[in-house]
Amino acid sequence: MSTEKPVYGGKASYRDAGVDIDAADAAKGQIARLVSATHGPQVVRGVGHFGAFFQAPGPDNPFVLVSSADSVGTKILVAEIAGQHESIGVDLVNHCVNDILACGARPLFFLDYIAAERFPEGLIEALVRGMTDACRKAGCALIGGETAQLPGIYQPGTYDLAGFIVGSVHRDRIVDGATIRAGDLLVGLPSSGLHTNGYSLARAAFGLDPKDAAARERLAATPAWADRPLGELLLEPHRSYLPVVEPLLDTGVLRGMAHITGGGIAGNVGRVIPEGLEAVIDVRSWEPPALFRGLQQAGNIDSAEMYRVFNMGVGFVLIAAPGDAQQLAAQLEGARIIGEVQAAPEGQQTRARYVGLADAGGD
Amino acid sequence: MSTEKPVYGGKASYRDAGVDIDAADAAKGQIARLVSATHGPQVVRGVGHFGAFFQAPGPDNPFVLVSSADSVGTKILVAEIAGQHESIGVDLVNHCVNDILACGARPLFFLDYIAAERFPEGLIEALVRGMTDACRKAGCALIGGETAQLPGIYQPGTYDLAGFIVGSVHRDRIVDGATIRAGDLLVGLPSSGLHTNGYSLARAAFGLDPKDAAARERLAATPAWADRPLGELLLEPHRSYLPVVEPLLDTGVLRGMAHITGGGIAGNVGRVIPEGLEAVIDVRSWEPPALFRGLQQAGNIDSAEMYRVFNMGVGFVLIAAPGDAQQLAAQLEGARIIGEVQAAPEGQQTRARYVGLADAGGD
Repeated sequence: MSTEKPVYGGKASYRDAGVDIDAADAAKGQIARLVSATHGPQVVRGVGHFGAFFQAPGPDNPFVLVSSADSVGTKILVAEIAGQHESIGVDLVNHCVNDILACGARPLFFLDYIAAERFPEGLIEALVRGMTDACRKAGCALIGGETAQLPGIYQPGTYDLAGFIVGSVHRDRIVDGATIRAGDLLVGLPSSGLHTNGYSLARAAFGLDPKDAAARERLAATPAWADRPLGELLLEPHRSYLPVVEPLLDTGVLRGMAHITGGGIAGNVGRVIPEGLEAVIDVRSWEPPALFRGLQQAGNIDSAEMYRVFNMGVGFVLIAAPGDAQQLAAQLEGARIIGEVQAAPEGQQTRARYVGLADAGGD
Repeated sequence: MSTEKPVYGGKASYRDAGVDIDAADAAKGQIARLVSATHGPQVVRGVGHFGAFFQAPGPDNPFVLVSSADSVGTKILVAEIAGQHESIGVDLVNHCVNDILACGARPLFFLDYIAAERFPEGLIEALVRGMTDACRKAGCALIGGETAQLPGIYQPGTYDLAGFIVGSVHRDRIVDGATIRAGDLLVGLPSSGLHTNGYSLARAAFGLDPKDAAARERLAATPAWADRPLGELLLEPHRSYLPVVEPLLDTGVLRGMAHITGGGIAGNVGRVIPEGLEAVIDVRSWEPPALFRGLQQAGNIDSAEMYRVFNMGVGFVLIAAPGDAQQLAAQLEGARIIGEVQAAPEGQQTRARYVGLADAGGD
């Protein structure tokens, strides 16, 4: 089980924007116990990773199936304002592809779930077009799905889209962070925008409510800090890291990987850092794209909150030994070293933290 | 891709109750083309079966992975009125288990997707309790999921729940209807109620709108035709056929199976009948439980519509050679012969039809 969006404070925060999962958090311990009770020896790793590991069927099979369920979140409401939905299908598939990639897995197949109060003409086709485009690029088969019209559950005019991916990895090639050591470096790979996280806060910051007639104009306008319309920036599809990372999967240099989704860079890198270690991310080591600065200003959001909710321009992180990491940073387009793994201090609270933040929340 | 609910006419119909997928149907051909373009040789069967077939990874692996995505539909709104959600988790898992079972597959693992505007305390835990209960009984691991709070997409106070299952079957044991012949018989297995289909129409018939203050009282009352409260009848969990059908999977007697979901008995049996054949279902061969008669009367629904939308007391169908079928009907609790496979007539429209309907739509 994962929760899409952690809750944080701050000047403007996710809680203010309508997202509050305290109730869910309170039950997490009990839920984890219930879920573990369904696990036999075929569940290769416990929960909490970017993907779930299950022994593939067949005698002496060295392959492990890695699966993940995801949704696009309220980026859908931005698509609705713009009247463009194809890229939402791309978002969903690439989000799923990146999640299992972070475990070392290559995609096999994908299923979707599309639900709405009712479907306007062309919506399902647009979503499927986006999903099949992204699936073809990932070498992944879209093999099934469910489409449900559920009057009374969804708000009129909107919909939800969830996806489910299954990939595989040879058991000797699983990447789960277990081999990470102090001194290893973090290589950040550039994101293509907000990807699929933080849209409730971003929509609040930019005034993007589908019920607000002016929202469409706001999306069509090019802000002073931008070189193209806000709508294009916000609907830029979630990037797939498969083409960049796949050639590295069999080299053995990757000790850990993190897909930066809800929880920001630290929240997600922390998921793969072993006990006794801490990833220290220096936010001065890269320049967040203009979109993040424009968003921070528009929403009067403090920096700590920004780095907790958004990817800030880093959508995927590779963790490797120093020499390997330096080589990856030099070789991969837009990549840079963004932090280091250190021995954890006494009384450690988290497995990853930021340094260099300008206002509250940094060192 | 599958659509949960076909559209039909009738005195009271799904269209009247707010479900209309004409727009989706119009795009189906195009969608099928897009989806097929993502399929390589590992996609063992095309789309349209109860589950999707994909070659399991590993050298010379005789196993095929069978997967399915499903949701519970607006049965959730009945649970909301009653304030009871645990059984919804059971519904979802058993629906998925039955879908892949109809292909001959045993479950391996399951992932869920839970989304809402916000989560009332205890909701997620109740759903997970139901899902894990059903997973344990099915020998299926709940290994992951996504929980999303999406303000602006869901109606306040409600939620949606989707599930994804992966199972496996030896390639020599796939059951897909290909060996069905004229003369084979259909064995109907009893359902435990409406399962998870037809709830928009059923709620309209019984006046069960969560916004209607009297709805809760209606659920608590025991109708004249019933022996327990309406709420208990409507929330009775979707039955799992795994315990009954699993012992038959390796016997080789099963030529086809159908899980009766949206589309009724004929709509689902027709999915596994080969070209040139037709399943003829005699509705006089069993007595639908009181719930279906009460529902028909309450909603003034004609018989043809009832048999098109609801399972009418038959939740799963086994198709076998006459001798085997007779033996199954004698041996399995509540089972009976409900129809026969015949050579298709000239100009055949469907692969399965009813005979013996009392009013419009029958022979």
